[in-house]
Amino acid sequence: MRQTVWSRQIRKQFLVGIPRTLRRSSVKPECRTHVLEANRQVTVEPGMSEYFNFMELALVEAAKAADRGEVPVGAAVVGPDNAVLATAGNRCREFNDATAHAEVLAIRQACRSIGSHRLDGASLYVTLEPCAMCAGAISLSRISRLYFGAEDPKSGGVEHGARVFSHPQCHHRPDVYGGIGAAASESLLDAFFRARRREFATP
Amino acid sequence: MRQTVWSRQIRKQFLVGIPRTLRRSSVKPECRTHVLEANRQVTVEPGMSEYFNFMELALVEAAKAADRGEVPVGAAVVGPDNAVLATAGNRCREFNDATAHAEVLAIRQACRSIGSHRLDGASLYVTLEPCAMCAGAISLSRISRLYFGAEDPKSGGVEHGARVFSHPQCHHRPDVYGGIGAAASESLLDAFFRARRREFATP
Repeated sequence: MRQTVWSRQIRKQFLVGIPRTLRRSSVKPECRTHVLEANRQVTVEPGMSEYFNFMELALVEAAKAADRGEVPVGAAVVGPDNAVLATAGNRCREFNDATAHAEVLAIRQACRSIGSHRLDGASLYVTLEPCAMCAGAISLSRISRLYFGAEDPKSGGVEHGARVFSHPQCHHRPDVYGGIGAAASESLLDAFFRARRREFATP
Repeated sequence: MRQTVWSRQIRKQFLVGIPRTLRRSSVKPECRTHVLEANRQVTVEPGMSEYFNFMELALVEAAKAADRGEVPVGAAVVGPDNAVLATAGNRCREFNDATAHAEVLAIRQACRSIGSHRLDGASLYVTLEPCAMCAGAISLSRISRLYFGAEDPKSGGVEHGARVFSHPQCHHRPDVYGGIGAAASESLLDAFFRARRREFATP
């Protein structure tokens, strides 16, 4: 699994933006369960801690996106055998590409890695509720499970707005679990937008 | 405009799938108006014929997609100055990419061509009503006008299903004109799926 090749530097950088309660090395299993239970949308299952490991990969990508001046959202696609197929962060500005959201980049990379335009049985971990475009991409790629972090009442397309998975025109609906690592994701987003507001407020 | 560089071969191939009433060289302006008026969603405006020229580019891409064994959908992005920024057809199977719909590929190519992740003032011509993913991409790229051909009650995300542009979470709504060259688009799709059904029915 790719997780094992993280450099210490990346891991340290990642931990700066993540609240101590979610740092993997310092969190006892019962703490994680507590965080999960605090969110009404999450089904707590035995062995839930593995979901945090994959969400951490997505959070690392989100933190790296913030460093590049992009909205800090990260994603990871995990195959049915729990092998990490792809990780990606937002790169809209870097790539001059309106579609370069973390989810879309991760899905494209995962499709390439298995040589198919379908990702049956795979799971997508993303730090923020996907927008309508990304929800559509998730459905088209036949991803089986979606784990997302923070809710996005302003631009989300899963639990808000277009609710892409809730129409007969959506031919594939993944199982959806929200609130995984939501606090860490919100912390990254808050810090990013606070810095942006300061930047614009400076005369 | 790219239209001028079409080879005779491509044009001939394209015309095979297009009803005679829509073949540009043989259509009088009043015929086009008639086709437009037959569709309740279309606003007929003076100079409407230019929209057909751009939709023809999209229809050529759709026909080429069918030849590659992809669902025949094509798209063209046109800048505010009527310069063609990008044309693309579906390439999901060829690229092993669930997100490689004609609209997404055209938007990505257009973004690259102008060096920005925003396409303010641009128009997108696409032969079929965009799905939720593509409608999301259109909104994110700030495309100003969407002209689409055939309606898609089964998978559409603009006039059907998720109706992506109809929610407060959609921060940019293009002007939408449906039914441009719808008959030609439907003809291509019908022929493609008829052939696919025959293929699967053959023992």
